[in-house]
Amino acid sequence: MSQPSVPLVRVTRGPLTECFHHGHIAVVDTAGTVLHQAGDPHFVTFARSAAKPLQALPVIESGAADAFGLTGEEIALLCASHNGEELHTSTAAAILGKIGLSELNLRCGAHLPFHRPTASAMRERGEAPTSLHNNCSGKHAGMLALAVRLGAPTEDYLSLEHPAQQRMLEAVSGMSGVPESSIAIGVDGCGVPVFGLPLSALAAAYARLGCPESLAPQRRAACSRVTTAMAAHPEYVAGDDRFDTRLMRVSQGRVLGKMGAEGVFAMSVPERGLGIAVKIEDGAKRALYPAAAEALRQLGLLDADQLSALSSYHRPLQRNWQGTEVGAIVPDFRLV
Amino acid sequence: MSQPSVPLVRVTRGPLTECFHHGHIAVVDTAGTVLHQAGDPHFVTFARSAAKPLQALPVIESGAADAFGLTGEEIALLCASHNGEELHTSTAAAILGKIGLSELNLRCGAHLPFHRPTASAMRERGEAPTSLHNNCSGKHAGMLALAVRLGAPTEDYLSLEHPAQQRMLEAVSGMSGVPESSIAIGVDGCGVPVFGLPLSALAAAYARLGCPESLAPQRRAACSRVTTAMAAHPEYVAGDDRFDTRLMRVSQGRVLGKMGAEGVFAMSVPERGLGIAVKIEDGAKRALYPAAAEALRQLGLLDADQLSALSSYHRPLQRNWQGTEVGAIVPDFRLV
Repeated sequence: MSQPSVPLVRVTRGPLTECFHHGHIAVVDTAGTVLHQAGDPHFVTFARSAAKPLQALPVIESGAADAFGLTGEEIALLCASHNGEELHTSTAAAILGKIGLSELNLRCGAHLPFHRPTASAMRERGEAPTSLHNNCSGKHAGMLALAVRLGAPTEDYLSLEHPAQQRMLEAVSGMSGVPESSIAIGVDGCGVPVFGLPLSALAAAYARLGCPESLAPQRRAACSRVTTAMAAHPEYVAGDDRFDTRLMRVSQGRVLGKMGAEGVFAMSVPERGLGIAVKIEDGAKRALYPAAAEALRQLGLLDADQLSALSSYHRPLQRNWQGTEVGAIVPDFRLV
Repeated sequence: MSQPSVPLVRVTRGPLTECFHHGHIAVVDTAGTVLHQAGDPHFVTFARSAAKPLQALPVIESGAADAFGLTGEEIALLCASHNGEELHTSTAAAILGKIGLSELNLRCGAHLPFHRPTASAMRERGEAPTSLHNNCSGKHAGMLALAVRLGAPTEDYLSLEHPAQQRMLEAVSGMSGVPESSIAIGVDGCGVPVFGLPLSALAAAYARLGCPESLAPQRRAACSRVTTAMAAHPEYVAGDDRFDTRLMRVSQGRVLGKMGAEGVFAMSVPERGLGIAVKIEDGAKRALYPAAAEALRQLGLLDADQLSALSSYHRPLQRNWQGTEVGAIVPDFRLV
């Protein structure tokens, strides 16, 4: 029987709490045991982009990363929901160049960069966004690299039946412990399959990603390469003014985090053998980072200085059009 | 003892419900009796811009509307969170002209128009937004009209102590039946005081707004003038591609509706003597219109043709960057 969601974050305005954001949190070890929780730790939802670090594994395991000489920055970009800054688009283009393809082969669609200064500058220049600016272009470039390595067609790589997607499904299944047939399949904003599984299983996959000792040698090596790349190049995983990047920087790579659309955040804490998955039930991004940072605080995984460096994500102030402070976003829950 | 929120709206993706939006609904008669509800009908929240039609009352009652010859369109704009289309900015400027002031007197701050085509065109022309484009510029022009009429200063009209704000607080109190001292005060996005009160009281105010027979003659006349203006000029209350405007058009003015930020929608159904207030607890706009339209459906206030004309608000489809349908936003609750 599933458990109800609990309020995780309050949005205040003057004397009132104006909004509540409900959600679920699972804190899990590498065996998949739930150590701490809020709401329903087994809430089933799509991992969305939080699956990307897991989806990078078969790109490495297939030999594609070595065959094409992918760098650490490029592997970090496979795991990214990036900002569309120049470093991101040029790196996506570099991966495509190494596999003999170009942005014309990307099927992710185009959108303006998440990074506002970059988007504004493009608007001012009258420059239209390309598929390289899509926040998922690194993941798509990785899917194409895998397709090329497997000798599979590069046209229909979005399809669940494509060998590249099948390898990614297998990786998510193997890492999470959820049988492939039990993983719910939807379609992502960028057109590829997305994977629905319990939060506790997503957290377990992240625990194993950061602490892969019990996995087969090839997977263990791939996990290590992904986490090393994320820790060393956090600016490629998200970018300027983004929580994922700031968290990995501030924690000096001791906490690896990746957001997913609709209120998902997954974290790996290698030295503690922990995986943590957060779902804001209504999908609100404004509640996601406060909840994730607060979970880390309660678990003793961020010290006061680190929390202070993340304060604009942990407890953001709300301002009005004139810049006056009118309220705050306040995490308010207790992990049990 | 307050009652918990209930899920009002589901967001689906493929086989899963990916997000839930919780909330509260109160359906109330002119006596303030709760006839139907979902969640906690007495949930206390800020009315935000849903208070604007009530805030227009003292502008009329003070004699300002007559003294300055405000038209029906201009009175509708006092009630608006408008799109910043040309008809809105020119009407706000016209009100200011009639009272001998200009946009330089507005203290609402500037933001790009809500209306995307208008905002895009301004960006292309390199045109910066002014206070006239602020969605609240009509309300602010009304506050200034009231200040001028009362012989009060026009500089500090944002302050709760200003006679214009005091008249507005009195109107919200009088219409809702909540004593002034029990109304929570916060600061809005546009700098003015906002009024916190139970949803049931906001709904009662809207019931009385549309059915003002029991009110004092001056207030009755003011209510009638506001509702007549909203029903006759719904495009001034919001604008192109906006639910408020579409609802009033589709219902031919038999349902008057006004949104407020952070998930508030208030409606008046004059011929049934009903007021309805909806609060999405997490503030999400994507859930607000489906919940409001569904409440009207369950109350038998919209027929099949009207619902069909509102289907893109009642049950919107979710598409990805490529335009592929990936899910839907589905109201899923039962008024009791």
